[in-house]
Amino acid sequence: MIDTPVIVLNVKTYSEATGSNALELATLMDKISKETGASMAIAVQATDITLCTEKVDIPVWAEHIDPIKPGSHTGWTLPEAVKTAGAVGTLINHSEHRLKLADVDLCITRAKELNLDHIVCSNNVSTSKAIAAFSPNFIAVEPPELIGGDISVTTADPDIVSNSVKAVKSISKNVKVLCGAGVKNGEDVSKAIELGSDGVLLASGIVKAKDKESVIRNLASGL
Amino acid sequence: MIDTPVIVLNVKTYSEATGSNALELATLMDKISKETGASMAIAVQATDITLCTEKVDIPVWAEHIDPIKPGSHTGWTLPEAVKTAGAVGTLINHSEHRLKLADVDLCITRAKELNLDHIVCSNNVSTSKAIAAFSPNFIAVEPPELIGGDISVTTADPDIVSNSVKAVKSISKNVKVLCGAGVKNGEDVSKAIELGSDGVLLASGIVKAKDKESVIRNLASGL
Amino acid sequence: MIDTPVIVLNVKTYSEATGSNALELATLMDKISKETGASMAIAVQATDITLCTEKVDIPVWAEHIDPIKPGSHTGWTLPEAVKTAGAVGTLINHSEHRLKLADVDLCITRAKELNLDHIVCSNNVSTSKAIAAFSPNFIAVEPPELIGGDISVTTADPDIVSNSVKAVKSISKNVKVLCGAGVKNGEDVSKAIELGSDGVLLASGIVKAKDKESVIRNLASGL
Amino acid sequence: MIDTPVIVLNVKTYSEATGSNALELATLMDKISKETGASMAIAVQATDITLCTEKVDIPVWAEHIDPIKPGSHTGWTLPEAVKTAGAVGTLINHSEHRLKLADVDLCITRAKELNLDHIVCSNNVSTSKAIAAFSPNFIAVEPPELIGGDISVTTADPDIVSNSVKAVKSISKNVKVLCGAGVKNGEDVSKAIELGSDGVLLASGIVKAKDKESVIRNLASGL
Repeated sequence: MIDTPVIVLNVKTYSEATGSNALELATLMDKISKETGASMAIAVQATDITLCTEKVDIPVWAEHIDPIKPGSHTGWTLPEAVKTAGAVGTLINHSEHRLKLADVDLCITRAKELNLDHIVCSNNVSTSKAIAAFSPNFIAVEPPELIGGDISVTTADPDIVSNSVKAVKSISKNVKVLCGAGVKNGEDVSKAIELGSDGVLLASGIVKAKDKESVIRNLASGL
Repeated sequence: MIDTPVIVLNVKTYSEATGSNALELATLMDKISKETGASMAIAVQATDITLCTEKVDIPVWAEHIDPIKPGSHTGWTLPEAVKTAGAVGTLINHSEHRLKLADVDLCITRAKELNLDHIVCSNNVSTSKAIAAFSPNFIAVEPPELIGGDISVTTADPDIVSNSVKAVKSISKNVKVLCGAGVKNGEDVSKAIELGSDGVLLASGIVKAKDKESVIRNLASGL
Repeated sequence: MIDTPVIVLNVKTYSEATGSNALELATLMDKISKETGASMAIAVQATDITLCTEKVDIPVWAEHIDPIKPGSHTGWTLPEAVKTAGAVGTLINHSEHRLKLADVDLCITRAKELNLDHIVCSNNVSTSKAIAAFSPNFIAVEPPELIGGDISVTTADPDIVSNSVKAVKSISKNVKVLCGAGVKNGEDVSKAIELGSDGVLLASGIVKAKDKESVIRNLASGL
Repeated sequence: MIDTPVIVLNVKTYSEATGSNALELATLMDKISKETGASMAIAVQATDITLCTEKVDIPVWAEHIDPIKPGSHTGWTLPEAVKTAGAVGTLINHSEHRLKLADVDLCITRAKELNLDHIVCSNNVSTSKAIAAFSPNFIAVEPPELIGGDISVTTADPDIVSNSVKAVKSISKNVKVLCGAGVKNGEDVSKAIELGSDGVLLASGIVKAKDKESVIRNLASGL
């Protein structure tokens, strides 16, 4: 499993992180991770997994897997396919890609079968606790109303982080908790860790930044 | 646009066509297409597009695009991403990946904007006709109950093919029609063309075949 | 089939039109329809269909049907159930309840089998044209960005109305066209008819009005 | 909250339980419940709630609620609407109507706000445990592969029942557990209770029975 505390970047489907732009970002994170020793991973679009895994050493993840096995599932994301492409982990149930409860269970099972690290996203304390019942690697709590915004969850709603950590650990001590939404700098990262989390999941804070390198270095300084 | 009559292979999420297996199949079709002059395309999983486009000359397609523009759409299939990865076309609304009506419209619009060839799948004559109103490149009619089966649509329900051709052409003469479901050999292909279609869309007939090469050659003989 | 030109009210799931409030609104429309001779229908929540049909003479419609037949479909809206409850028509594919293309086809088929009047909602000219291929009773074009707004579609985008009428009639002369979004008064209604439509579909314009009676009378004056 | 042990009938969208047929079934259960003292509830289609609540004393439930508040949600099932129609409870997340994880949370919250009894359906032990984190009134575990079948879950997979009870109680002692799938007679009911559950949820076992009265009496004898 990936080392913690960790900074996980989800590049979504931003133009700034599609194709060669995704590779450029992955390369930059790889360099900074090596220089600083900070644990980092990047989740990229399915089309860009091989492109990145061939060139960088940091863990490359998928942004999503579907609750399926090999077979007749045209256009869906097969867990085996992202693994074969080189991904070593995946996001599950991101707020922009919510799954049915039974499918969250199935995706976690499939990720475990394939030895894929996995972060299951939740929107509040009670869903964090519910997800913990499935014993995933990681749960990332992200209040939907703060995603993509200017204020970090660690400032806007620190209780959701500390209470998610408490709720998750009450179910399963081995599950690690990340937090996300509005995270932008090292101070947000260190606050996240103070609140009991094992790191952050972020997207636009890096992808949309003008000077990506200095933002990533600043984030890393908070670990 | 791809030449017609055409044989389009959708490899779905079969193990036999994931990762290096997808490349092997694409390479085989590429070879036979060059030898026979038969027009062929292969639709592969998003993870395998670059892998294939770097090595073969036949058109490589995506199996699906989502009705989105670049932005916050974690884990969905961005049309720009499949284009950047090297795909020159895409399936839309496959029977295993049905879209809402308004999203069929939007996906076709996005495919046109990006100059991606596109096959929109329909399940019967009336939906074929409805889709024709959007003036896509291709419509592929595939009766769901025959997909993956042993009897070709051209034998089991020839009227659905000829009537789809008629219905589509009554709306827009430039839209080409393919047919699929149960297609397995050259006879099925030549019957499809006799019925007025411009080719076939198939999957398990090739992917699940023991001797893929002889099946593809046999199919090509029907053009 | 309901007489045209017609005013169809969709009460959605507003508090102001749930339970006895729905009945009050239906009763008011019934009274005004009888006094003025204006053709009107009201689409109410499934729970309120019987409540209204037992007390009023204007047509009571369902807001939605699911693409199903009697059987194992817990919690979905069975076309036979809304018919049995007294509904004589239904909306299909409302912008807040979009259906897959194949399901739009199936819902229209089911409505015809049960002799239910039906309005299929579209979001633009091309989807209006596509829906026309299924020969429904009515198509209602409603640009999503104008729904619930202050400016009537007939003012904000009159071309979408006249072009939908043209596109629909080019496919099937018998299909009638309504328009909706932002419709609030008699002037909007008469403009809708001038543009070639057979009436209007509206919601908040009536449901959220302080003086519902005067708004309904004003709308009726535009027929 | 409804008394336990309890027999809850879900009539789905069967013809045999639509409109007056639903009322007939509710009346029969009402009679037998009064005669035997057995606690029973019936979940009916939204269209039939008022019809039943006006005539019977046993609790009438909705089959589903959507995760919404009053507003613009055309054709969806508003919790307030089923309450206003007379329902005192609802199923949530039935295997034929699965919800996204965040929506399971929201539906339970809405049911509690409106003081609606609620049974949240699960498909296995781990989802039962996950749902327990939301502290609903009831969880009903129903293995999907046994639903509608001839063998009762209590015979085919007794461990799923006892292990769900254990898992749920480990999270929250106040949550009651039902079981379902293939339940057909009093012996199945008494076995369900022996296994630690608080009753059964069933559908076709009653609805599809030729002699509904004797089946219901037989089931009641197992409490």
